[in-house]
Amino acid sequence: MRMDVLTLFPEMFDGVFHSSILGKAQEKGIVSLNAVNFRDYSGNKHGTVDDTPYGGGGGMVLKPEPIFRAVEDLLSKSNERTGEQFETTADDSISAVATTESQRPPRVILMCPQGEPFSQRKAEELAGEDHLIFVCGHYEGYDERIREHLVTDELSIGDYVLTGGELPAMVMIDSITRLLPGVLGNEMSAVTDSFSTGLLEYPHYTRPAEFRGWKVPDILLSGHHANVADWRRKEALRRTWQRRPDLLETLDLSPQEIKWLEEFRNETK
Amino acid sequence: MRMDVLTLFPEMFDGVFHSSILGKAQEKGIVSLNAVNFRDYSGNKHGTVDDTPYGGGGGMVLKPEPIFRAVEDLLSKSNERTGEQFETTADDSISAVATTESQRPPRVILMCPQGEPFSQRKAEELAGEDHLIFVCGHYEGYDERIREHLVTDELSIGDYVLTGGELPAMVMIDSITRLLPGVLGNEMSAVTDSFSTGLLEYPHYTRPAEFRGWKVPDILLSGHHANVADWRRKEALRRTWQRRPDLLETLDLSPQEIKWLEEFRNETK
Repeated sequence: MRMDVLTLFPEMFDGVFHSSILGKAQEKGIVSLNAVNFRDYSGNKHGTVDDTPYGGGGGMVLKPEPIFRAVEDLLSKSNERTGEQFETTADDSISAVATTESQRPPRVILMCPQGEPFSQRKAEELAGEDHLIFVCGHYEGYDERIREHLVTDELSIGDYVLTGGELPAMVMIDSITRLLPGVLGNEMSAVTDSFSTGLLEYPHYTRPAEFRGWKVPDILLSGHHANVADWRRKEALRRTWQRRPDLLETLDLSPQEIKWLEEFRNETK
Repeated sequence: MRMDVLTLFPEMFDGVFHSSILGKAQEKGIVSLNAVNFRDYSGNKHGTVDDTPYGGGGGMVLKPEPIFRAVEDLLSKSNERTGEQFETTADDSISAVATTESQRPPRVILMCPQGEPFSQRKAEELAGEDHLIFVCGHYEGYDERIREHLVTDELSIGDYVLTGGELPAMVMIDSITRLLPGVLGNEMSAVTDSFSTGLLEYPHYTRPAEFRGWKVPDILLSGHHANVADWRRKEALRRTWQRRPDLLETLDLSPQEIKWLEEFRNETK
């Protein structure tokens, strides 16, 4: 899988692309990550990529030409490599003239606070693609024609204001990469997968059994597997009920779990 | 303001801490950013920071000692610098023995998928603090005693699974830093502040007025300021209605805006 990022700050990606799981996934050849400065596609000697907005008002707006040219250059390089034909057309975003049906046209993803909220389901969907191009603005707005005629998806990682699209792109790339087959080793267990059971995680404890007077719950030291499993299910349910009751609404709870919920409610009365 | 990050991958922060707004905010002396490897506080020659979970099961769990020691070391350095007294106590998280009332004890923030969802409101709250310490796990779980006796906040940036807390910490640090007085110059206008009016942004356009046959709306070229302002309000409302109708529920809409909403609804019938 190939993921390209269009950005004015490619150096922001250095540390993240070369560390930990993303670094290893590239070494294994599972994913190819590439940060491209779209200022190189400005087409003018000053490297201008933005301009004032039509209609007045503050702020700057990213011009369409550099982003279109950069995406098209990535597509033509991708075509050379794969022998496939993808092109942008005048009447709609990206159309594929694929010579085989196995290769899909790239998704061009705009990092945008107004976009669809990114989710685990979206990460799974994107992990099935062959080529993703992330477009990152950096405190400028985007010329609307980029949205209308070039991008296939607009995504946001949450309702908070950031300086640019670079950190959201890193978040999405990490989330997608860890889903690719062969990326996660045995060290990455269900411990991280808070959302896979629909419940938040139960509390974890490791050595020492007593730290500064704070002890590990006796049941975890008991060696009684069924009791440990029961305690964990109950505590995962309790934590979800306390912190994210919205997650419970979509779950089919067992009679035992419904009983535990009543118990939690009575405890707080 | 000081922000420290405890992580096993401090090199991930290099590119982000030295680029763009975060780099400038540090140069101006507004914020001090510091990534600390808590493996240096393992207290053993192998640098072990995690261990298997009590009660069995897969995955590894971060041990309490290295994290407690690293936080305490940061606090003692902070005390030396400011002359204030903050300490961790055996019976509760962090207590302040402040010699003046102006300095507040640091917030110790755990990066955690089970945490409170990070929001713009939370960024504003944290931007009022003097010292934040972010604790990043990396595909391990946290020993529960870290949660119970050391951290003051548990935060999550969204409902998707990531490899570690490093990217969420960067997202929060960026979001908080841009709120600090003096950080944003004039180049950072309302264009970025999607959530400040309660509506998503209106569409932006810049030169050229025609690009590959796609034209800028005439009204934006008219020079008629009142019409431009009306068009923008209407298009911001339309975009919010199309993409994030949930945001409309909490707004006091004007009679004109209510009329526009009816118009949008009729258009799609």
